[in-house]
Order: sequence, then structure tokens, then C-alpha cells
Amino acid sequence: MNKANRWLLPDGIDEVLPPQAMRMESLRRALLDLYNSWGYDLVVPPPVEFLESLLTGTGSDLDLQTFKLIDRISGRTMGISADVTPQVARMDAHSLHREGPARLCYCSHVLRATPDPHQGGRSPVQVGLELFGYAGLEADLEIVRLVLASLEQAGARRIHLAFGHIGVYRGLVKSAGLDAETEAALFEALERKSLAEVDALLEGVTLSEDILRMLSALPRLNGGVDVLAQAAKTFEDAPESVRVAIQDLQALAQALSYAYPEVTLYFDLGELRGYEYHTGVVFAAYVPEFGQAVARGGRYDHAGKAFGRARPATGCTLELKLLARLDEQTPPNDGIWAPVEEGAELNDLINELRAAGERVIEALPGQETGPEAHRCNRMLIQRGGEWIVVPCTDTSTR
Amino acid sequence: MNKANRWLLPDGIDEVLPPQAMRMESLRRALLDLYNSWGYDLVVPPPVEFLESLLTGTGSDLDLQTFKLIDRISGRTMGISADVTPQVARMDAHSLHREGPARLCYCSHVLRATPDPHQGGRSPVQVGLELFGYAGLEADLEIVRLVLASLEQAGARRIHLAFGHIGVYRGLVKSAGLDAETEAALFEALERKSLAEVDALLEGVTLSEDILRMLSALPRLNGGVDVLAQAAKTFEDAPESVRVAIQDLQALAQALSYAYPEVTLYFDLGELRGYEYHTGVVFAAYVPEFGQAVARGGRYDHAGKAFGRARPATGCTLELKLLARLDEQTPPNDGIWAPVEEGAELNDLINELRAAGERVIEALPGQETGPEAHRCNRMLIQRGGEWIVVPCTDTSTR
Repeated sequence: MNKANRWLLPDGIDEVLPPQAMRMESLRRALLDLYNSWGYDLVVPPPVEFLESLLTGTGSDLDLQTFKLIDRISGRTMGISADVTPQVARMDAHSLHREGPARLCYCSHVLRATPDPHQGGRSPVQVGLELFGYAGLEADLEIVRLVLASLEQAGARRIHLAFGHIGVYRGLVKSAGLDAETEAALFEALERKSLAEVDALLEGVTLSEDILRMLSALPRLNGGVDVLAQAAKTFEDAPESVRVAIQDLQALAQALSYAYPEVTLYFDLGELRGYEYHTGVVFAAYVPEFGQAVARGGRYDHAGKAFGRARPATGCTLELKLLARLDEQTPPNDGIWAPVEEGAELNDLINELRAAGERVIEALPGQETGPEAHRCNRMLIQRGGEWIVVPCTDTSTR
Repeated sequence: MNKANRWLLPDGIDEVLPPQAMRMESLRRALLDLYNSWGYDLVVPPPVEFLESLLTGTGSDLDLQTFKLIDRISGRTMGISADVTPQVARMDAHSLHREGPARLCYCSHVLRATPDPHQGGRSPVQVGLELFGYAGLEADLEIVRLVLASLEQAGARRIHLAFGHIGVYRGLVKSAGLDAETEAALFEALERKSLAEVDALLEGVTLSEDILRMLSALPRLNGGVDVLAQAAKTFEDAPESVRVAIQDLQALAQALSYAYPEVTLYFDLGELRGYEYHTGVVFAAYVPEFGQAVARGGRYDHAGKAFGRARPATGCTLELKLLARLDEQTPPNDGIWAPVEEGAELNDLINELRAAGERVIEALPGQETGPEAHRCNRMLIQRGGEWIVVPCTDTSTR
């Protein structure tokens, strides 16, 4: 690397410049205030932890995405946080140990070793919510409502919410009793939504007709709310856990279509994202402006088990860098230019203006750029012995 | 690591829990708003960069403190940011390339491979300011004024500001023309403030009596503002750069004692902190509550040179985690408890209360903890067909 390209950033690692950084800050504040008003307490997880703490019960995807470091002090391997959720689960289970439901939120820079095609760059700023200690659907619904409120806050107009339920596939596969190899192949085919491959695989196994019919229906059951009625029928004789999963989705659909008629709901019963990790309802939110999800979430009960406290848990994460791009406005040209002069009177006035929220820039002796270059449309001048603020265009006493 | 200690955090790496996290967030907002009101634009540097970008012109201390990673994509070595300043210098020189003075600020989690005895833990949250493109003392003064305003904002009562000037030692050593070995030994002895060793070293070298006298005076010139008059006399015949350095410190002392009579000023002409990196005035701020500095700063001209643009630069960093501990208050018990009930009326009222800044927690069906466990002193109840907010102690219709 020579002088000419020392400014290069690694692929997928990006900085945020003005004015976008301030937009991100404003949205961060609006979201954390929103979460506080719903009773979510802010936590700040550390940027690194021992690898074993970070990867507890999260599956191999997160392992691959996590940068590893040797800690010079302990000699042990640490990981840079690639997903804040396991850290917050540790905080709930070990650091806080609260009685009853615990609501926590965070906003942290995370880092990923490999770019995730669904998640944009390798250094996203993750804003998120977690609700621990409550197994009922009301908790999942609260999280979804907060995702919608967050997206509204960010200026999203048309929101598309896609739901799945890990319990459907899990229940069917358990009841089918497939061998590990076939199950893995089926999982992969479903994940790729390859209907032909799923059908071909199922033709080769000996299972009851009912289970075969239900497994083969899985990748076909996706679309609007009507899919749920169809699924209820298809899974009429399925194990109870599968039927409960459908009922959960139906209850969510009902609550959401009533309260948010403008949001498009989509259901995909073959959805397997985060299968190793999630345990119930999962969802992703999309807006037409971006090809990737702007929010993701779902239930992940018992994530705290490794830290000595298995609790129900549900939550979501949003990508702040992405969301802050939804409502890009040019920053106003509204600063006040203060001249190079000293004196208690001028100083007091500048302090007052700043305390009142004004942006006052003090000129530096001999500097060559003027008010315009620093987004100032007004200036402080002395007129009749008094300091006053006038538009920069008012040159009467200059 | 087994289940019992999977919650352990690496030494010096810490999390921030409620309510301290919210205090930190409040202070972060107050500081960034303050900086905005002085014309500083927020930037968000990436958490990692290629090592060569991070360590440009910063000396070996930062190298030792920087965690290294191999980037799986480029195969090159990256470093985790241990100090945001070089990153912001890169942004000024390359990404922004503004005409005239540029004022930038940031608030970022950084990470250090080894604990710095002067800087607390290994995962501080750094808040900082940089002023690029202006060589005059007015820029240094502006940074110091903002450090004082920041500390006041954080609730600091008694502030102690210690100043040095890298130009003093640099000018003397240059003029003395010491051999590299003796200079290194002198530097080390001065850094350890070992008077005896400095004297012993100087006895062994052949130098003009003037230079010997001045070098030997260096570690003795520290204390209140009077030290500066003494220094002016001692360095009367020193090279011009040394005399200008003393004049700079005198000008700062005058401006600060006038505007901030309550702040204790301390000067140490043998101060060598950041010698490889700094080029002019350096300072550190202390409060009696903590043994380490809460803010540090100084001039570091030409840090952008490696990125193709050498500009004057001065700035400071503050430790947010530490500062947020200055004004620890118990969070108020002021939430509103909403019952498990549905209905548009109740829902609208909850939305209104939240929009007005209230913290409203919705009870979850069957949950065992009550309002008190969730910091609620009021609750929503229905009385005469209408939903109203009453104190939790008002049980008349419960």
C-alpha cells in the first residue's frame, strides 16, 4: 500500500460522512426514545467477548461470520460481535437476572468476516430489541409492532412483512422420522425453494401418505393471508406443534391486518432462515427502496441456557445505516457566523445562541473560507454598539 | 470454559447495563449537540481499517495497542480502531477534502489489545473533536474550551487542566545535536521524570553551557501559571521555536485564567506524552473523582500527509464511559402500567402517552411481576367508562 491508496477501506467496511452521520444519529435517538417509551432498557454490549460466549447456541452461520482474535492477556480466543443478540441473552441470563419479563434494547456497530448477501456491508450498525421471560405470542406481537413503529419513524412508506414459523418444519420432520442424510438434503432443497428437488427426494422415501403430502406442501404454502387457511387445512392431521404454529400465525395475521391495514403481509411456511437458532415465529421486513431486509426477528427461546438461565425470548434487529438512507434530506444552511473579535458581550451572546440550539461558528483569524462554505446563512455584527444577528445578505455595515 | 463461566468477559472488556447505559446515552447526546452548536460535523469511522491506514504517523504505542486481523477477502492485515483520531485525519484528508477549516466530531467504541494504565479499560467509548486546516493557537483554544464545556455538561465540578508543549523539548534537542543513543536515554529519563538521571546524563555530554542549563531545567519546570514566567526567562536564549512554544502556553494561560477562573491550570514543560505524534500544545484534563485523565488532546499537524494532504490539526478525546459515571442518578420510578386489555381507546391513549414522552409498559397476559418491578408508579385504569392514569397506590377500582 503506498501513499496513493492508503485511504482505501476494506471491501464492505464503510465510514459514514456528514450529513449522513447526523441523520443516522437522529434516527438512533428517535428509535431509542421510542423503545424507552415502551419500557425497553438500553444496554451497551462490549465489542468483543470470548468466542464461546458469542457463539452459544447460534449455529455455524454466525461462527463463519465472526472475526477471531487472540487475547494477549488470557491467551484465549475472542470474537468480534457479529450479532448482538447472543450478547444481550447473556446479559439477561447472567448480568441482570431480572424477575419477570425483561425488555432490553441496544444500538451497536457489529463486524462480519464475510459479507452476508442479505445484510449488506460487513460493518452494519445494529439496532435491536429483545423481550425475555415471556413465551406467549403477545411478546412476538409487541416486537412486530415496534418494528413497524421503527420503520415508520425512519420514514418508510410501503412496508412488506414476511412471516414464517420454525415449528412447522420442525414438527413435520420430527414426526416423519427421516434419517439424518435425507433430512439434511430436504432442508437444503427447501432452503433453496426447489420444488422439483423436494418432490424428487420425497418420492424416494417411505413415509405415511399424510406426512409426505404435508412435507411436499411446505414449499408451496407461501403468499398472502389466505395461505394460512390453506395451511390449516393441509396440516389438519399434523402433530399438535404444527397446528399451534399455524394458529400463532393466524392470530398474528388477524391482529396485524386489523391494526396495520396498510402493511402487506406475506407468509412462507417453508421459511427456514435461522433454523438452528430460532424456535417459533420468524419475520423479516422489507421496503421497496432496498433489495435486502431492513429488519429481521423472531423467537429464540432458551438462548440464555448456556449462561445458566433458559428463558423464553423474542426480538428483532434493524440495520441503522440502511434505515437512515430512507429519508435523506439536505442539511439546512442555517448556521450563524461569528466574527474574529473578543469581548464578554459577544461571547455571552454566542453562548446564549448555542444554548438555544443554534449552530454558531467562530471565524478563525485570517481564515480564507467565509460563512457560505460553513453552511451559515446569518452572521453576528455590531450595529449601534450592540451585537445582533443579521442575514449574510445584509451587508449594510460590513 | 464450561457452563458455569461462559458469562465471563475478557479482562478490561466491559459491558454497560441499565441504568448506566441510559446515562451514557444522555451524555453522548448532550455532547454531540454541544459540538454541533459549535459547528462540528459528526462522522462515523469504521470499526476496522487496513493496518497501514490506522497506524500512519502515530508511533509505536498505538501499534502495540491495536488488535490485528486478517481480512478474509483481501488477505491483508486489518486493525481494530484503538484511537479514532487517525481515522478522522484520513476522512479530512481524503473523504471530505473540504476547503478551509474543517470541524469534525465522533463517538465510537474503540478496542485496545493491552490495558493502558492512563486510559482505564480496553473497550472505552471515545468521544472526540478534531479541527483541521488551521495552524493558529485559536484552534487549540477552541478545543480546550470545548473540553471544559464537555466536562461541565458531564457534571464535573473541579477541573484540573495540565498543559505541555512538544515544541520545547523538540527545539532544545535539535539545537543540542545529541547523538541518537543519548537522546533516547534523555527522553526516557525525562518521561520517567527522573531528575537525578537527567542530571547524570547531561554531565556526561559536551554541550554549550546554555543548552545544558536549559535541558536540565526541563523536568523542573512544572507547576502553576508562574512556571511560564520562569520558563520564559530560562529559555530567553533558546531557539525561536522554543520561545514561541512558551509564548503559546502563556497566551493559553491568559485566555483560560480570564474565562475560567475556577479551573486549575498546571504546566509541565518536560511533558513528552505522544511525542512521536504530537507537534505543539498538548493537554490532559483531570477531575478529583478519577485517577486517570478524563480528556486528552493537543496539536498533531500533518497527520493527513500519508493520505495525500498535510494539514494543521488539533483535537481531543474524552472517555464517555468514565464521564457518564460523574453524575450517577437513580432512574426515576415514573412508568405507567397498562393492563392486559384490548380496544382502540386504550391503544390510542397509550400511543398518546408515549408520544408525549411517557414510559408505558404493557402487561403481558399472566405475567407474575407487577408495576413496581418495572419502575411504574402509575397505572391505566378504566373509571366511569373512560381510561385514566392513576397512581399505583390508588386502588379504589382495582
